[in-house]
Amino acid sequence: MYELLGNKWHEECGVYGVFAHDEDVSALTYLGLYALQHRGQESAGIAVTDGAWMDVTRGMGLVNEVFRHQVPHMDNQYIAIGHVRYSTTGSSLLQNTQPLIVNYSGGKISLAHNGNLTNAMEIRKKLEDDGTIFQTSIDTEVILNLIARSRKETVEERLADSLNQVKGAYCITLMTENKLIGARDPQGFRPLCLGKLENGWVLSSESCGLDVIGAEFVRDIEPGEMVIIDDSGIKSVHFAPKQQLASCIFEYIYFARPDSVIDGQSVHDARFMMGRILARESKFKGDIVISVPDSGTTAATGYAYEAGIPFVEGLMKNRYIGRTFIQPTQKKRDTAVQLKLNAIRSVVEGKSVIMVDDSIVRGTTSGKIVKMLRNAGAKEVHMCVSSPPIGFPCYYGIDTSVRKELIAAKKSVEEIRQYIEADSLHFLSIEGLKESLTAVNPNNMCYACFNSDYPVEQGKQPEGSGKYVFEQRKC
Amino acid sequence: MYELLGNKWHEECGVYGVFAHDEDVSALTYLGLYALQHRGQESAGIAVTDGAWMDVTRGMGLVNEVFRHQVPHMDNQYIAIGHVRYSTTGSSLLQNTQPLIVNYSGGKISLAHNGNLTNAMEIRKKLEDDGTIFQTSIDTEVILNLIARSRKETVEERLADSLNQVKGAYCITLMTENKLIGARDPQGFRPLCLGKLENGWVLSSESCGLDVIGAEFVRDIEPGEMVIIDDSGIKSVHFAPKQQLASCIFEYIYFARPDSVIDGQSVHDARFMMGRILARESKFKGDIVISVPDSGTTAATGYAYEAGIPFVEGLMKNRYIGRTFIQPTQKKRDTAVQLKLNAIRSVVEGKSVIMVDDSIVRGTTSGKIVKMLRNAGAKEVHMCVSSPPIGFPCYYGIDTSVRKELIAAKKSVEEIRQYIEADSLHFLSIEGLKESLTAVNPNNMCYACFNSDYPVEQGKQPEGSGKYVFEQRKC
Amino acid sequence: MYELLGNKWHEECGVYGVFAHDEDVSALTYLGLYALQHRGQESAGIAVTDGAWMDVTRGMGLVNEVFRHQVPHMDNQYIAIGHVRYSTTGSSLLQNTQPLIVNYSGGKISLAHNGNLTNAMEIRKKLEDDGTIFQTSIDTEVILNLIARSRKETVEERLADSLNQVKGAYCITLMTENKLIGARDPQGFRPLCLGKLENGWVLSSESCGLDVIGAEFVRDIEPGEMVIIDDSGIKSVHFAPKQQLASCIFEYIYFARPDSVIDGQSVHDARFMMGRILARESKFKGDIVISVPDSGTTAATGYAYEAGIPFVEGLMKNRYIGRTFIQPTQKKRDTAVQLKLNAIRSVVEGKSVIMVDDSIVRGTTSGKIVKMLRNAGAKEVHMCVSSPPIGFPCYYGIDTSVRKELIAAKKSVEEIRQYIEADSLHFLSIEGLKESLTAVNPNNMCYACFNSDYPVEQGKQPEGSGKYVFEQRKC
Amino acid sequence: MYELLGNKWHEECGVYGVFAHDEDVSALTYLGLYALQHRGQESAGIAVTDGAWMDVTRGMGLVNEVFRHQVPHMDNQYIAIGHVRYSTTGSSLLQNTQPLIVNYSGGKISLAHNGNLTNAMEIRKKLEDDGTIFQTSIDTEVILNLIARSRKETVEERLADSLNQVKGAYCITLMTENKLIGARDPQGFRPLCLGKLENGWVLSSESCGLDVIGAEFVRDIEPGEMVIIDDSGIKSVHFAPKQQLASCIFEYIYFARPDSVIDGQSVHDARFMMGRILARESKFKGDIVISVPDSGTTAATGYAYEAGIPFVEGLMKNRYIGRTFIQPTQKKRDTAVQLKLNAIRSVVEGKSVIMVDDSIVRGTTSGKIVKMLRNAGAKEVHMCVSSPPIGFPCYYGIDTSVRKELIAAKKSVEEIRQYIEADSLHFLSIEGLKESLTAVNPNNMCYACFNSDYPVEQGKQPEGSGKYVFEQRKC
Repeated sequence: MYELLGNKWHEECGVYGVFAHDEDVSALTYLGLYALQHRGQESAGIAVTDGAWMDVTRGMGLVNEVFRHQVPHMDNQYIAIGHVRYSTTGSSLLQNTQPLIVNYSGGKISLAHNGNLTNAMEIRKKLEDDGTIFQTSIDTEVILNLIARSRKETVEERLADSLNQVKGAYCITLMTENKLIGARDPQGFRPLCLGKLENGWVLSSESCGLDVIGAEFVRDIEPGEMVIIDDSGIKSVHFAPKQQLASCIFEYIYFARPDSVIDGQSVHDARFMMGRILARESKFKGDIVISVPDSGTTAATGYAYEAGIPFVEGLMKNRYIGRTFIQPTQKKRDTAVQLKLNAIRSVVEGKSVIMVDDSIVRGTTSGKIVKMLRNAGAKEVHMCVSSPPIGFPCYYGIDTSVRKELIAAKKSVEEIRQYIEADSLHFLSIEGLKESLTAVNPNNMCYACFNSDYPVEQGKQPEGSGKYVFEQRKC
Repeated sequence: MYELLGNKWHEECGVYGVFAHDEDVSALTYLGLYALQHRGQESAGIAVTDGAWMDVTRGMGLVNEVFRHQVPHMDNQYIAIGHVRYSTTGSSLLQNTQPLIVNYSGGKISLAHNGNLTNAMEIRKKLEDDGTIFQTSIDTEVILNLIARSRKETVEERLADSLNQVKGAYCITLMTENKLIGARDPQGFRPLCLGKLENGWVLSSESCGLDVIGAEFVRDIEPGEMVIIDDSGIKSVHFAPKQQLASCIFEYIYFARPDSVIDGQSVHDARFMMGRILARESKFKGDIVISVPDSGTTAATGYAYEAGIPFVEGLMKNRYIGRTFIQPTQKKRDTAVQLKLNAIRSVVEGKSVIMVDDSIVRGTTSGKIVKMLRNAGAKEVHMCVSSPPIGFPCYYGIDTSVRKELIAAKKSVEEIRQYIEADSLHFLSIEGLKESLTAVNPNNMCYACFNSDYPVEQGKQPEGSGKYVFEQRKC
Repeated sequence: MYELLGNKWHEECGVYGVFAHDEDVSALTYLGLYALQHRGQESAGIAVTDGAWMDVTRGMGLVNEVFRHQVPHMDNQYIAIGHVRYSTTGSSLLQNTQPLIVNYSGGKISLAHNGNLTNAMEIRKKLEDDGTIFQTSIDTEVILNLIARSRKETVEERLADSLNQVKGAYCITLMTENKLIGARDPQGFRPLCLGKLENGWVLSSESCGLDVIGAEFVRDIEPGEMVIIDDSGIKSVHFAPKQQLASCIFEYIYFARPDSVIDGQSVHDARFMMGRILARESKFKGDIVISVPDSGTTAATGYAYEAGIPFVEGLMKNRYIGRTFIQPTQKKRDTAVQLKLNAIRSVVEGKSVIMVDDSIVRGTTSGKIVKMLRNAGAKEVHMCVSSPPIGFPCYYGIDTSVRKELIAAKKSVEEIRQYIEADSLHFLSIEGLKESLTAVNPNNMCYACFNSDYPVEQGKQPEGSGKYVFEQRKC
Repeated sequence: MYELLGNKWHEECGVYGVFAHDEDVSALTYLGLYALQHRGQESAGIAVTDGAWMDVTRGMGLVNEVFRHQVPHMDNQYIAIGHVRYSTTGSSLLQNTQPLIVNYSGGKISLAHNGNLTNAMEIRKKLEDDGTIFQTSIDTEVILNLIARSRKETVEERLADSLNQVKGAYCITLMTENKLIGARDPQGFRPLCLGKLENGWVLSSESCGLDVIGAEFVRDIEPGEMVIIDDSGIKSVHFAPKQQLASCIFEYIYFARPDSVIDGQSVHDARFMMGRILARESKFKGDIVISVPDSGTTAATGYAYEAGIPFVEGLMKNRYIGRTFIQPTQKKRDTAVQLKLNAIRSVVEGKSVIMVDDSIVRGTTSGKIVKMLRNAGAKEVHMCVSSPPIGFPCYYGIDTSVRKELIAAKKSVEEIRQYIEADSLHFLSIEGLKESLTAVNPNNMCYACFNSDYPVEQGKQPEGSGKYVFEQRKC
């Protein structure tokens, strides 16, 4: 629903990297980005090197739009990194696309970054005061400047040096002319995993990016770990002391693909369990369980399983509504939901319907869907949400442009129920959410958007930063 | 899967039409074509008239690609028709896009056509012998020539005259400067329904095209019926005597959207019931029921319901694989299925899996999916197909380019099972299929692709027609 | 100036054709169309055949825009025809681009046409009454229908049959699967010439289209002649009795390229001589002779030669103003001339300037240029025009959309002089114009736009034809 | 000829700037860039500010391609700068387009630069050693870093500080949120002039950029001068001590538009005088004087004037050969010259022809043109070149990619004559060239490409810089 309706929180980026002689590394990166496309639809980029030259192709749009005519390629290329960024409007600029490539005293570096540094503005201000210019409004450029200014010898030491100065969330794939490096912040906000090819290595934000090219999953990069891959093999460095982990719980709720496994926890299983616990918590009774496709489906099947109520398709999703949809006339504004979803009358007519979705951000779309179901004859609509109410903004890489519009920041659950005109409404409890994580320690997660318990002090923003800071927050 | 893998039969067209003063009829048509996009992704077109002028915009690609920059519009426009055509390769040409607009002695006509005339070649040959030129290779041009040559007075009489000369499958929306006409062939091969706006009328291949613009469903156009809409209201004419009905059963199995209702039968309900009967027929036992998304899902939920086995998501579909995908290297050819689908290991590992899909055409993709499930740890894979084996080509508007490759034309069910390496395989019986239709008479359907019982004599093809005839068969 | 300012009459088309085994005929046609680009900038198209298949690529824009990504090509292609059409606005449509390809009882035909039939509407009406449909608004489709309806055997007989029914101006290149045919109307309005390759033949609107591919000029196609080229060689047929010739004099004044030779007369030499005679007639004295670049330059050098006054560049033309220029603000409208032309102050300051241009259509641009010269310090501006005043519309293929705006239809020479604020103004006399033709009989020309002596009766236009007829007149 | 044939030296950039309240400054910049398009066809960019925000639009291609759909615009915009860069192949990159926009401690700066710094590599190396990253390979980024690192207060002091560290050729337009600054290097290699609008100021590489928008020419920016324009008016600062001037003589020979006046010298008059002196020096006799259009025309008219021999058009240039020309087959490679130029047989046949061109770089094209004239029947071809032989590379902003191919570096004049197969060949002497400058001191020019007398020590290039340095040299 997101492109059209803007009623979801957005994941901000996906990163990728391949190191392999005798493989078409840029093509593998291209396939990997396809698998990570759900993490960002605004822009895409691939950088490659053959050991001497380094080139990048970047553009606005989906992977298949940016690389419509050709996939980047170099003879003898053996390292490539890639990046996708989410779709927004207005402030998105071509110059903010990644990976960036720069020259510094040590040679060339290309870097792709997923996450958000909470002290980027402070560091940037200090760097500017020291005579540095900035050509983009993304954190990535801050990291690159810190690398260039480090007095350390090797690129991995320089990177470690830099990362010890920044705070917040980041997963990085970095490439020099002969190394591929992956790094994950010490609190593990965002996922990053390592895969193995017959004769090479792969880094991917999610394990689904390994599956797509037939790479074998090796392990997750640990929080505070950096892996350095070159012709001598793979090396691991822990560049930061252990800290309280704070992995983003929204990866399990909504962002990641169900077929990915993050830090040992299957996303599908967590999401299915959220549905099961929702059933236990809500105790809603009904004739059928339906989902708001596609992101609510896994939890809905879990609900159905637990409650012993049949899962059926009550809402049909149009799979062809793209990013470039022209809203033909202002008057037709309300067709947006209708264009994307349609209730199946024969399924819901006369039924007591339990509808499962993953989250409620502004509430407007939920209200329209409830109405759509009633118009199709549903007798009752009981809405279950597989996450707690979102009452607080995120500072670690999620788009908070809708911050003021968070319905749960202003309304109680009962008020929300009235607003969306459902017969009942239940949000998964934080405890229930924790319980749904069966293979990972639930206390290693960040739940700040639900309870404002922010795991990292949020950077002070320089005065008058206004829109600029906002842009800076994107990836 | 279709765009990428070409392993499904293709619906060939969707048609649409709106007549309404004081409405943005071209914008409504644009929205309607979005809803009908599943019926054709190769090209799209919209023609409009304001009573004096008539214009058309057509192009190759999806609706949002063809109308990327603007939706056609005329001041005072009040009639519009639209068309979508399916995606193929090679022989698809811009000049074959619809609607066509022509001038003839009676003025201007625009026509959109879904279906296939079985005697088009014969008529065309006769017309050519009589001095007619043809600028496209689509049936539509044949119908337009017959209209122009008719000695009747009104356009509806001329159209009736023409339609009585052609054989085969057709649903038509036709527009003059002041009339909107819809017509359906006497055997009702393809669907066409009528909807009502506050101050106007809508024609759509499927009822989901009415829902999307908030039009009220009125009724299906009857086989052999023509409706004429103008400023004096709506008029119905039966232009042909009653014949044995032969609606395409594949509309219910795969082509139509589940939220559509065709001839009184909910597509979802038919498909759900196919799943239920599959369960009864196959009696397969397993731990979980999964579907090959998205088209197998409705039947899978029906199977799960009937068998009391949980429905879960075992295969994840990548929603971002578009038509413009570049296959990066020949070597990676096999990533096509992997790129589109991924098994969820935690779901299928160690399980006995019942997998439901809607049809098997060539069998190659099914084989790859079975293998994917086994690689993900599935203990057993039992495949259920919600249609009988397809052994015969279709002559009424379905792409038969894969005719020679129909696996069921050459192999027994057991041989197919071995080919795809499933533990068991069951195809829905024709009787089961008939039983799944609860709201429409199952004897009014065409099952020729299963049993070669063709309801209309197939036109003789002029000698040496080769590829040309093949092209001619597209819409 | 034309694209931007619309103050010239427009040539309407260029046609081309190549027959040659073992040559890249579509590439040669592409190069030929480059050389003929001045005859039409609105659209371009190339059709090719390999003896079995026939394909066409057409599009709006310049040759290098339409064939931006690739030149059409078939393995074993050996015949190709091409077409360029001039740039207009509004009524120009993709469907009106050429060459057209049609099927008829005799097979496939592709046809490209330059000129205008004066009785096209009458024939079309008759054909429509007889049941024919029309999909374009160009004359070409009328000719194709006449070919298809002819009862003659061979395509050349059918074409002759057709051409004997039409009146007006036409030059044609036509292609079947194994023949290339060129034809020129009996009065020879438009040029068409024949060239020879080592192992093939070329047809081109102008001889510059032969030079560009290194083809040897053989001869002009004679008025009323048709040449048929196939594997048995080249054959000539006179399909129509001799008539009074009426070649378009504007080819020599403005349309054709100076390096072309038409019917034995060098365009450059005619234009140079027009300048010389202008000098004799006007007897203007001045310090320098300048031209309005580029089309006025040849005559200006002739004037300078005859008068013994130095030719210098007084106006600089910006060569980069393309068709796609965005006029940034309405207020800046007057920059259009300034953007395209700039006076060179050091050249004209304090001088008595003789300025030569080829024609005056509306007079507005001439006025702006005179003013520009005065602003740059010119003491006197004496304008010489190398054609007589244009007082009458053309019915043989020239755009007459500015008919009402013809300044010479409403004002005397003295009034025009006052309007453009020149110190003196002289138009070449018709006698002087005739005298400038030294290698072709001046009495075989059409001067109707100067003296309304139309060589062919103009077709009656069916009532109420309005805009439609206007469109029909384009090519 | 340049785009296609690459046989000319290339000017590298044009810069522009407008400061004016109540004017559409970005639209004026767009028009100005049209007028400067001859200085660069590879890329174009416009940056604007409204006093708070600053935005840039840049792209590859001509001005009308980059701004095909819209001209950049901000409400309340009042300062804009623009840049065009010449067309090359291969190493040209989107990221190297200008103007650049950066943030530094003082706010935002946008900068456009024409010229080449001879010590850019040294400074860049030093900056890199000091921890600076570089994202482009253009000099502009070096200047911006020096500005950011300056310890001075105001942006104009910082700029002066920077410019005193760099050596070589530069003309700059720079914009902050409230200032427009223009600067020219102390030796005045490249031109830059100041114009006045009713309520604002304009900076342009050439005066033709003022004429196009109706701005009044005020004066040239002096070598070593910086002008600062803001709401308090215009201020001039001489940031560098006087040095020996070294204006590029090629501006007068070939680069600048004839209608421009640089440092008081009309380009047309200099070029015309070169032709006159060529006639005096060469004493060639012939029947006609022709030019290689368009750049040879001014000198040719001067030659004709001096020698009293008629100037006529002997070569026709195709004005439609664009940058995007597809060379259809390798075999046709030689059509490149034929496609662009065609001899007019009736003009040159049997004549002794004096052909004037502005320069000979590699000699291959000259040879083809001489041959073309002979094939058209010329009896004798005497070639006159309005510049001395080019024997040495340029280090101040001219493309020297053809350095090794400079024919005059390897061959004597007589050897060149034999190579191009002309009957005689004369190059303008350096003395003659100096004499042609009637309004500017000829000793203030750089003639290094003719005599290797380089006015600025050429920067040492870091070892192993290879292709990188080469790229760095572009603009």
